[in-house]
Amino acid sequence: MTTTGGFTLPGEAGHEAFTLAMAQRWGADVIRDSDGTQLSDEILGSGHGIYSTLCLIREDNAWAKAHPRLMQQNFLMSRPVTADGDRVEIRLLDGYSTDQFVLNDWDGVEEFWQVHDRTTGTEVPAGRWALADGVVTVAGAVPGHTYTVNFLVMRVWEEISMYNHVTNDWGDREHLMAVEPRYPEVAEHILDWLDRWCVEHPATTVVRFTSLFYNFAWFWGSDANLPHVYADWGSYDFTVNPVALRAFREETGLTITSEDFVNAGRYTSTHNPPSDVYRRWTAFVGDFVRDLGRRCVDVVHRHGKKAYVFYDDSWIGLEPYSGRFAEMGFDGLIKAVFSGYEARLCAGVDVPVRELRLHPYLFPVDLEGRPTFQPGVEGADPTADLRRYWVTLRRALLRARIDRIGLGGYLSLVEPFADFQDEVAQVADQHRRILALHRAGGPVAAPVRVGVLTAWGALRSWTCSGHLHENPDLSLLHVLESLAGLGFDVSFHRLDEVAEHGVPAGVDVLVNAGPQGTAWSGGDGWADPRLVAAITTFVRGGGGLLGVEQPSAADVPGRLHRFQLAEVLGVDQDGGDRHVLARRRFVVDPDHPVLAAAGAADDLPPLPGLHVLRDDVRVLAAADGVPVATAAQVGRGRAVYLSGHRHGPASARRLEDALWWASGRERTGLTTSDPGATAVEIGGVVLVSNDTLEPRTVQVLRDGVALATLDLAPAALHELPV
Amino acid sequence: MTTTGGFTLPGEAGHEAFTLAMAQRWGADVIRDSDGTQLSDEILGSGHGIYSTLCLIREDNAWAKAHPRLMQQNFLMSRPVTADGDRVEIRLLDGYSTDQFVLNDWDGVEEFWQVHDRTTGTEVPAGRWALADGVVTVAGAVPGHTYTVNFLVMRVWEEISMYNHVTNDWGDREHLMAVEPRYPEVAEHILDWLDRWCVEHPATTVVRFTSLFYNFAWFWGSDANLPHVYADWGSYDFTVNPVALRAFREETGLTITSEDFVNAGRYTSTHNPPSDVYRRWTAFVGDFVRDLGRRCVDVVHRHGKKAYVFYDDSWIGLEPYSGRFAEMGFDGLIKAVFSGYEARLCAGVDVPVRELRLHPYLFPVDLEGRPTFQPGVEGADPTADLRRYWVTLRRALLRARIDRIGLGGYLSLVEPFADFQDEVAQVADQHRRILALHRAGGPVAAPVRVGVLTAWGALRSWTCSGHLHENPDLSLLHVLESLAGLGFDVSFHRLDEVAEHGVPAGVDVLVNAGPQGTAWSGGDGWADPRLVAAITTFVRGGGGLLGVEQPSAADVPGRLHRFQLAEVLGVDQDGGDRHVLARRRFVVDPDHPVLAAAGAADDLPPLPGLHVLRDDVRVLAAADGVPVATAAQVGRGRAVYLSGHRHGPASARRLEDALWWASGRERTGLTTSDPGATAVEIGGVVLVSNDTLEPRTVQVLRDGVALATLDLAPAALHELPV
Repeated sequence: MTTTGGFTLPGEAGHEAFTLAMAQRWGADVIRDSDGTQLSDEILGSGHGIYSTLCLIREDNAWAKAHPRLMQQNFLMSRPVTADGDRVEIRLLDGYSTDQFVLNDWDGVEEFWQVHDRTTGTEVPAGRWALADGVVTVAGAVPGHTYTVNFLVMRVWEEISMYNHVTNDWGDREHLMAVEPRYPEVAEHILDWLDRWCVEHPATTVVRFTSLFYNFAWFWGSDANLPHVYADWGSYDFTVNPVALRAFREETGLTITSEDFVNAGRYTSTHNPPSDVYRRWTAFVGDFVRDLGRRCVDVVHRHGKKAYVFYDDSWIGLEPYSGRFAEMGFDGLIKAVFSGYEARLCAGVDVPVRELRLHPYLFPVDLEGRPTFQPGVEGADPTADLRRYWVTLRRALLRARIDRIGLGGYLSLVEPFADFQDEVAQVADQHRRILALHRAGGPVAAPVRVGVLTAWGALRSWTCSGHLHENPDLSLLHVLESLAGLGFDVSFHRLDEVAEHGVPAGVDVLVNAGPQGTAWSGGDGWADPRLVAAITTFVRGGGGLLGVEQPSAADVPGRLHRFQLAEVLGVDQDGGDRHVLARRRFVVDPDHPVLAAAGAADDLPPLPGLHVLRDDVRVLAAADGVPVATAAQVGRGRAVYLSGHRHGPASARRLEDALWWASGRERTGLTTSDPGATAVEIGGVVLVSNDTLEPRTVQVLRDGVALATLDLAPAALHELPV
Repeated sequence: MTTTGGFTLPGEAGHEAFTLAMAQRWGADVIRDSDGTQLSDEILGSGHGIYSTLCLIREDNAWAKAHPRLMQQNFLMSRPVTADGDRVEIRLLDGYSTDQFVLNDWDGVEEFWQVHDRTTGTEVPAGRWALADGVVTVAGAVPGHTYTVNFLVMRVWEEISMYNHVTNDWGDREHLMAVEPRYPEVAEHILDWLDRWCVEHPATTVVRFTSLFYNFAWFWGSDANLPHVYADWGSYDFTVNPVALRAFREETGLTITSEDFVNAGRYTSTHNPPSDVYRRWTAFVGDFVRDLGRRCVDVVHRHGKKAYVFYDDSWIGLEPYSGRFAEMGFDGLIKAVFSGYEARLCAGVDVPVRELRLHPYLFPVDLEGRPTFQPGVEGADPTADLRRYWVTLRRALLRARIDRIGLGGYLSLVEPFADFQDEVAQVADQHRRILALHRAGGPVAAPVRVGVLTAWGALRSWTCSGHLHENPDLSLLHVLESLAGLGFDVSFHRLDEVAEHGVPAGVDVLVNAGPQGTAWSGGDGWADPRLVAAITTFVRGGGGLLGVEQPSAADVPGRLHRFQLAEVLGVDQDGGDRHVLARRRFVVDPDHPVLAAAGAADDLPPLPGLHVLRDDVRVLAAADGVPVATAAQVGRGRAVYLSGHRHGPASARRLEDALWWASGRERTGLTTSDPGATAVEIGGVVLVSNDTLEPRTVQVLRDGVALATLDLAPAALHELPV
């Protein structure tokens, strides 16, 4: 151990000596509690900073039980029922967990519920349906038509409590409930309770909110074959209730209906482009969360403590990239991370302290149920896990400043793993060295500025929705993971903003990636001709474009192409409606700067119906007879198309080279001979990382000239003079 | 040789003895000429019937050259051009073959041409563009927008002439031109010429029209990498010209524009659901073709000859399934066939004589350039080719009557192939025996009536567009090929007719098959709730439904499902907009009547995002984690889903079993223990065919009881008493 600070250790009562030993070994300046652990007086009094974890909406279950109608709510859509005659009966909660949901039949049935004929896509007038005993009966039904009901439910079991309870088989342990802070008495109670708590916990230096008021959406089912119905990390479905709906209508003058949330059973899935009214709703919820959040932070500050917020679980409404996050006054943001892009997500937020909670979590099993801290158990290797995660993350830390790292869980589990203890010590030291270099001047960025174009834009910078292992096939998320470790400045932009204002001045190369119809590639936002014209003139005037998978894809009547930027990219995809039109022949010519460093493009998947539009489009690689990588000069600009992207050392290097080439600039600055290694000029030194778990011999080059050749141990971090 | 008749032999001058020997050997009652062959007086006087092949629109090239503005026309769309400034110049014929097309700049430029801003999908007003020297200049263009011109061209080289010329490298041999019979002087000339021809050819007993006036669409390109631009066997693109357009507007009162044909470069591809105005156009062209065709037939009849028509090449407007084909008075219809469904297509037409032209064509190479009649050349095996084609076709002939078969090409090529001569003799005898059984009472059909539902319906019965080898992945075409040899009555229905009038009374099981958006599965026709309600009530009331690939697929706002019949089928496909909704778990249970005979369903492809909607849906097979075959009881009816279909003995048997099961009837009648063999009760006997090229031991069963066990030679046709 050579340095201290910037490290948060999970303490554990009953293991005081080990806690303090590890605190010293890893240079921890802070000790935290975790779900299921306590800190004893010996730890609290050890002179370290103390984090205390609070989840305000479920902390006072006794109070919640005494106020049974003040729980959080949401809309559900019933199962569809097909009419055989002119009456249909729909049992509303069929298929849903009655442990999680109870019908709200006391407030807003006539006002908010909607019955739809889903065969016509139209609403059934209110006079033609009635509710009784949890069943809606529709009169005047059309035989052969299918009907659904959108209805309000109250949730009687908070989702994270539910998950831990069910996963760990906690039997009759209490179900925690989530109160709805839109009810004034709930908000007042939360503030009072927090004030009291601060008085009672003088040792706490940082209140670590986990998180604020609204969990991401998570519907549980009652069928053995459908135990979970819907989960979306970015959805505002759980912010709905009669109070909020009425306030929204009052405040905005807009109509908002159940169907704006239910969306024929799609709900407000983040991967779908958001509707205008849903965007407005998220802003409306943001105002509320910010206001009450600010009041909670004020309470904490009044007691001389800091307030940090954990950016997971009940994070909805926080939106660290809303541009107004700083108004809440948080002193720190903590993000649980598996990947580099999540570190960039944290690093990019306007907040004094940005902290990462590393994996593995100190638990016997990991999130996917595999053994971790179980001595002697086959497959359990937490040291290898940590090293793999760290090497993945570190690429991002070389590019953007993270102030603190830490662990969570049961520290005592680490005791038998001496090699894990060593590995954490090295990780903590590397973190502190990288942080020091950031403070000494930070990294030198490449002169190419990349703008990522999605339906969400800056609001959801550096994320899609969920972790990479939850979205293993999502090309944009892999692009973000590659970008997280590359030297480009990266900004995020909304399609409609570019349509309105043109390509932002600070962007050299635009990136659009993902499957058709999603918020990631942009969906029907591409129907706006202003957007297409803005990017076309941008590229023809000298800008760069990188399209991945189905860039700018939207099937719009009267248009020539599925890819609305096809004339720029020089490729398009036939959706089947041009099947009998001949495909232009091409020759594959892999000798191109885009493939120069990464070599082959065997990893790129063939997209059926993809074809080149002009002979001046260079095809760099093909599979199953269709191009998978192309490059074209377009006017004074350049466009590159890749049929997919899956992050890895070689593909990240290819992406980097594609961005350089598309920018039209000669490549300058540092690079390495091996895509598995990164070289960064930072704080007056050159850091060279081996981003792989094998030894590598790596040449470091500046502006194409060799600086040094290094033999790097697995995962090594090496320092050279500039 | 045991029987004679029903066989058409291609004669060849200079090989008279061989011609007559083969005529006797194969029992030919008719001798025909072919492209490139002549019949000598010795053959003409041999006592056989004589077919003479005529293609009216290109027979008198001298006349055509003397009337250079009376050629056929069509619309083309220019290449798209993107504006950098406010003026765009578009060179109209760029990329198109100027051997095929010349600009029609003398008639209808202002009246019919259209310029489009394809970035907005809107038309540029006529005052903002001008034509000069083959270039259209657009003023007031928006930078970054892309423009195209729809314009009229005259065709100066008939497509079949062009194909033969280019393929055979005929150098300076004359280019044949296709005259436009909408010009009254052309129609008169055709009739006069035909009259003269009949006078000059007394030996001809049958005029074999190849075919009438309009070829299917076929655009040639000028780029080495795009030598063909567009080809569609069912398209009416070549029926367009100013005379016809004006007549259509006059007659119907409807507006029709260039864009109704160009359709943003899709043209009138048969695989896309036709627009209402295009349907009306095909009927309008049909009226014209019928009228002039009738007058041609009358000329032929006046000379005491018969008139047959070849249903290929210039077939557009004939539409044998229009319900009005018989009005033309043809004595016979001849169809070139590779597959069973093409035989059913021919057999189902209301015309006195239905004749098949078999493959292989007597040419040194086949249509795909592989050697056939080349003695000693590796891979050339015309006998095996004939046997394979015959076994393929024969399944259909057992089910529907064909009156004649024949060959085409250079008979002399057959001389070195004694085994081919034997094989033809056997084929001719089998044909005559099957025909005799049809005449003796015909086949006994299964009591299950199948209705195939497409956007085209009955008009395009027993076909999609083109041959099976041209559409190897089209599930509906494979379904038709399987149905061609099964014992069900098959009818064809249009989506909009079912929406309007309900499921026709004569249908027991509806079939909908093909990719989303196509005319085959039906496209946006599924947005009509009347259609969905009609089929839903049909099935719930006891009907059957078989969905293949993406049945009833259409993405319609406000609907629950991509498959509009998902609530009936019990499965749906997520198009990505429900990615975070959980998928119902299922168990695979292959023990079901649908798979009982065919066994495994390993050939069925996984369709990404396919999922079951209810626990009562039986999953019979799955691949890559998604169901590929399911079966469900729905009310009193039944529904089966198959993710694809590729014709073969086992898959055809599976399809048969699926249709029986969906019908709800107990299977009755004849079957075999081996899907590679067919048993049919026909004309008072049982015919058992080995539909494979290997020997098979086959048990024949009636109503589940064994009738006989047979050792069948490859391709054998065996006869049993009833």
